[in-house]
Amino acid sequence: MRTKSKTSAGNFFEDFHVGQEIRHATPRTLTEADAALNVGLYGSRFAINSSDVFARALGLPRAPLDDLLVFHVVIGKTVPDISLNAVANLGYAEFRWGVPVYPGDTLSAQSTVLGLRENSNRASGVVWVRSTGVNQNGEMVLDYVRWVMVNKRDREAAVAQAVTPRTAPSVAPADLIVPKGLDLAGYDDIAAGSSDRWEDYQPGERIDHVSGITLEESDHMFSTRLYQNTARVHFDAFAGKSTRFGRRLAYGGHVISLARALSFNGLANGFRMAAINGGSHVAPTFGGDTIYAWSEVLETAPLRGRADVGGLRVRTIASKDCPAGSWPGKQADGKYHPAVVLDLDYWLLVPRRR
Amino acid sequence: MRTKSKTSAGNFFEDFHVGQEIRHATPRTLTEADAALNVGLYGSRFAINSSDVFARALGLPRAPLDDLLVFHVVIGKTVPDISLNAVANLGYAEFRWGVPVYPGDTLSAQSTVLGLRENSNRASGVVWVRSTGVNQNGEMVLDYVRWVMVNKRDREAAVAQAVTPRTAPSVAPADLIVPKGLDLAGYDDIAAGSSDRWEDYQPGERIDHVSGITLEESDHMFSTRLYQNTARVHFDAFAGKSTRFGRRLAYGGHVISLARALSFNGLANGFRMAAINGGSHVAPTFGGDTIYAWSEVLETAPLRGRADVGGLRVRTIASKDCPAGSWPGKQADGKYHPAVVLDLDYWLLVPRRR
Amino acid sequence: MRTKSKTSAGNFFEDFHVGQEIRHATPRTLTEADAALNVGLYGSRFAINSSDVFARALGLPRAPLDDLLVFHVVIGKTVPDISLNAVANLGYAEFRWGVPVYPGDTLSAQSTVLGLRENSNRASGVVWVRSTGVNQNGEMVLDYVRWVMVNKRDREAAVAQAVTPRTAPSVAPADLIVPKGLDLAGYDDIAAGSSDRWEDYQPGERIDHVSGITLEESDHMFSTRLYQNTARVHFDAFAGKSTRFGRRLAYGGHVISLARALSFNGLANGFRMAAINGGSHVAPTFGGDTIYAWSEVLETAPLRGRADVGGLRVRTIASKDCPAGSWPGKQADGKYHPAVVLDLDYWLLVPRRR
Repeated sequence: MRTKSKTSAGNFFEDFHVGQEIRHATPRTLTEADAALNVGLYGSRFAINSSDVFARALGLPRAPLDDLLVFHVVIGKTVPDISLNAVANLGYAEFRWGVPVYPGDTLSAQSTVLGLRENSNRASGVVWVRSTGVNQNGEMVLDYVRWVMVNKRDREAAVAQAVTPRTAPSVAPADLIVPKGLDLAGYDDIAAGSSDRWEDYQPGERIDHVSGITLEESDHMFSTRLYQNTARVHFDAFAGKSTRFGRRLAYGGHVISLARALSFNGLANGFRMAAINGGSHVAPTFGGDTIYAWSEVLETAPLRGRADVGGLRVRTIASKDCPAGSWPGKQADGKYHPAVVLDLDYWLLVPRRR
Repeated sequence: MRTKSKTSAGNFFEDFHVGQEIRHATPRTLTEADAALNVGLYGSRFAINSSDVFARALGLPRAPLDDLLVFHVVIGKTVPDISLNAVANLGYAEFRWGVPVYPGDTLSAQSTVLGLRENSNRASGVVWVRSTGVNQNGEMVLDYVRWVMVNKRDREAAVAQAVTPRTAPSVAPADLIVPKGLDLAGYDDIAAGSSDRWEDYQPGERIDHVSGITLEESDHMFSTRLYQNTARVHFDAFAGKSTRFGRRLAYGGHVISLARALSFNGLANGFRMAAINGGSHVAPTFGGDTIYAWSEVLETAPLRGRADVGGLRVRTIASKDCPAGSWPGKQADGKYHPAVVLDLDYWLLVPRRR
Repeated sequence: MRTKSKTSAGNFFEDFHVGQEIRHATPRTLTEADAALNVGLYGSRFAINSSDVFARALGLPRAPLDDLLVFHVVIGKTVPDISLNAVANLGYAEFRWGVPVYPGDTLSAQSTVLGLRENSNRASGVVWVRSTGVNQNGEMVLDYVRWVMVNKRDREAAVAQAVTPRTAPSVAPADLIVPKGLDLAGYDDIAAGSSDRWEDYQPGERIDHVSGITLEESDHMFSTRLYQNTARVHFDAFAGKSTRFGRRLAYGGHVISLARALSFNGLANGFRMAAINGGSHVAPTFGGDTIYAWSEVLETAPLRGRADVGGLRVRTIASKDCPAGSWPGKQADGKYHPAVVLDLDYWLLVPRRR
C-alpha cells in the first residue's frame, strides 16, 4: 500500500527552524461549563470568576473565565506541535494575560520559533517559541515565551547554527495589562472574602494558605483531556509503568491551578493573574498526592494611571504531603525541600484602598 | 514584620454572639453546567430538572436547577464562617426551599446567630444559625435553622449566657412553598417515568429504591469543591490519615444527593423537595462505599388552594454496602442498623390526579 | 398494606410484544456543559464539536454536540424499559444519525418492538427494537435497530411465536444523512488538525492512533450517570463483587467514545459519524484499563450530489493494555486477540478536495 501515514508523531527538534510560524489545531469555544469545571476540579473561590453580579459591579460584562483556564487551553493547543516529543519543560518568560475571556469566546493559538540550540549529546535540543492565544476577534488573551527540550528523531540529523533568544528576567509593572473598562470602585470586600487590600501586603510577608487538596488520577486526567492536551505521560497508566517513575505524571498545570485555588485563603483579593515572571515544576506529582501552598510577597507596584488597583508580585510554593506552615522552600544549600513541587513567581492585580 | 495574618482560620465558638449577622463570601452564578454536573455526579433523572420542554409544560420558564444543588451551594457558602471549626453537624429545622433557581441566577448567603450554648467541658459549644440563600433579586431560595458544635479557640475564653432557640419539630404543610406559576395540568407521567400520583401513596408504605451507586474519592471531592465548600476533612487525604477515621470523609450532602437520585425509582413524581423536617448523617461514608436507599411514606397532606399538587412526607434512609431490600433502619433497641448512613425526613411535592 | 409497588423492575422478556410502542422517560435538554464534559471525559478534539467559529464556517449555526453523545443519551433513555434485565447486548443495525443536535435541544426517545425469539433454555429471549431519538421539534437525531438478550421473569411464562426481523447488513452510502446547510468549502485543514482529505484514504489502509487513555472507575461511572443510563452493573461495586467478573463493568459506550477520541490522530477530518454498520463489545473493560485504538479503512464512497464530502467506512478496533501498533484484531483462528475490547464498523463523513 502506498498511502502516507495519517498519524502525526509531532515535531522533533530537527523539524523546527527559527522564524517558523505554526498555527495550532482545534480552536475551542469556552463556555459556562468550563467555568463550573474549573470550580469543581480545583475548588477556586475568587468572586470575580464565580459571580456575574460581582463582575458587573466592576464594569465587566459578566464573570470572566479563570485566568489559568486560559493558560491551560492555550498551552494545550501547542502540545501536538511543540512539545509532544519534549523531554522537559524548561521555562517561561514575558508571560502576560491580555483581554479577559468570557463564555462563548473561541480561543485559538499560534507559535513562532524564536530560537534553537542543539544539546551537546546531539540527542535533543532546546526550542524557544513565542506562543499567543487569541479570541475570535483576534485579540490577545495570553502571550508568552516558552522553552522546552525536544528530542531529535534522528541523532545524526544536521541542524542550523544555534540561536539563543534573550528574554526579560521578569515582567515590568508597566507592562501589566489591566482589562479595559475595569473599575474597582464597586469592589465588595465581603463578597470577595477578604478586607485585605493592596496596601496591606508587604514585601517579605509570608502567607500560609492552610488547606490541602488531594489529587486523584481521575481528576488530573480529566483536566488534561478538558484542555485537549495530548501529552501522553498524563493519561496512559500502562505506558507509565515503563517510565522511570513507574506511573502517570499529573499535568503540572493542574498543580498550578490547585495552588492558585488554595491561595484564596490569604490572597482572596488577588482577583486577576496578570503575568508570570518565572516558575518551575520542581518535582512531579502523582495521583494520591495532597497539595498544600504558601506564598511570599515579593514586591508591590503601583500601576500608572490607576488609583484603584495595584500590582502584587507573589511567589507561591506548592508542596506535597507536607502542610505549608513549615514554609517548605529553597534550603540553605540552594536545594528545594523534598516536598516542594512548584515554585511560581507571578503578578496579581489587587484592589487599592480608596 | 508587622502585618496582620492574611489567613482566615474561621470563627471559633467565642467569636459568635446572638443576633450577629454574617454575609458569606463568594456569590455564585449557577449555570447549565451545574445542572449537567448534578446529573453526572448523582445520576438524577427527575424530568423537571432534566428537560426544558417538560418544565415549560408546567408553566416554568425552563428546567429549574436541582433543589439539592441549591442546598449544597448555600450551605457551602456558610462553611468558612460557621462551621470551619465544627466538631459535628447537629441538626436542621424549619428548612424550606423558596423560589426555584434557574441557570444564570446568582446565589448568595447570609446567616444570623440565633443561639449559643457552651458545652460543659468548655472546649466547644453549640451555635444555632438561621441561614438564608437568596438570588440576585433578593428572593429567598432556601432558608433554614442549623445547629453545629463548634470548637473554642481558647478553652478559658468567657462566653455569654446560653441562649437556646426553639425550632419547629417539622415544617407544617401550610408552610410549604409551591413555586409561582406552577400548573401541573400538563404533567406528563410517561416523560416523568411514573404513573404514581399523590393519591397512590399511603402512610406506612415502604419503597425499595433498588439500585446502588458507588462513591469514589474523586466524586465526592469534586462535588465538595464545586459547591466551594471548604470543609477540609473532605479533600485532604494526608491530614485524613491522622484522624480517628484514618482517611477522608465524604461530604454528607453527596450522600443526600445520591439517595435522592436513587429515590427516582419509586418516587419519580416527587418532582420537588419543598422542605426538610429533620435528618441525621448517622455514620460517615468513604470513597468506595456503595450507597443504597429506601423510603417510608410518613404523611400525605393536601395543600391549601391546590387541586393539582399535594405534599408527601417521606423518610429516606440510605445505607452503605447493604442493599435496601432488607429495610435497614432503626432497630428494636433504638440503635441504627450498622449499615445506615443517612436518615432524612422531608416533604416532596407530587402531582395529584385530576 | 394494599398499595402496588412503586418500584420499577424493568421489562422482562415476556412483557414485550411485537408492535409494542414504548415512549421512554426523562427527556433531556443537552447543553454546552454536555459538550465540555464530552471533551473532559474522552479528550475529543474534533474541531467541529469544539469551536463555534469552525462550525459556522461550514454553514452550521454553532458547534453541534458530539455524535456519540447523542448515541449515549438516546440509548441511556431506552435502558429502563428495554435492557434493565438484559443478559447481553447482541447487535445494532441500520444505525444512522439524523439532524445535528445543538446545545439547548431536548432529546427524547421511543422504541418499537420489531421481533422476539425465546431461547431454547426458556430462561431468556432475544428482543429486537427500533429505537428513535428525536429533538424538541420531532426531528430524528438517531435511529437504529438493536437486539438484546433479556431474561424472563418467569421461566414458565408462555410467549408468542418467534418473529425474527431482517436487518440490512450495513448502511448503504445512499442512506447516509448529510446535515442540511452543511457546506465544506470553508473547511480549514489547519484548524481541523489534518490535511488528509477523503481522497487520501484507501481501502485496506491501517492507521495506528498511537496514544492510550486509562479509564478510571470514577470516569466511566460519571459518564453512565450523565447519560442517565441505569444499567446497574456499571456503578455498583458492592453488587459487582458477586458477579462472575468480581467487579463493576465499564459502560461499553465509554470505550466507544474513547476510541473515537483517540482516532483523531489519523482521522481528524472524519468530522461526523453518519452511521454504524455493526459492532461488538468483544470483551469487558474495567477501571484501570488503558484503551488504545487502531483503524482500517474498509471503503470509500462518494455521496450523491456532493462534491465537497464523501463517505469513509472505517473499522476501529480498541484494545486494552496493548498498544495498537501491533494491530491486535481477529486472528487466523477467527478469535480475537485477547486484548481486543471493541470492534466497530461505521461510516464517517470526510471533506473532499475541491
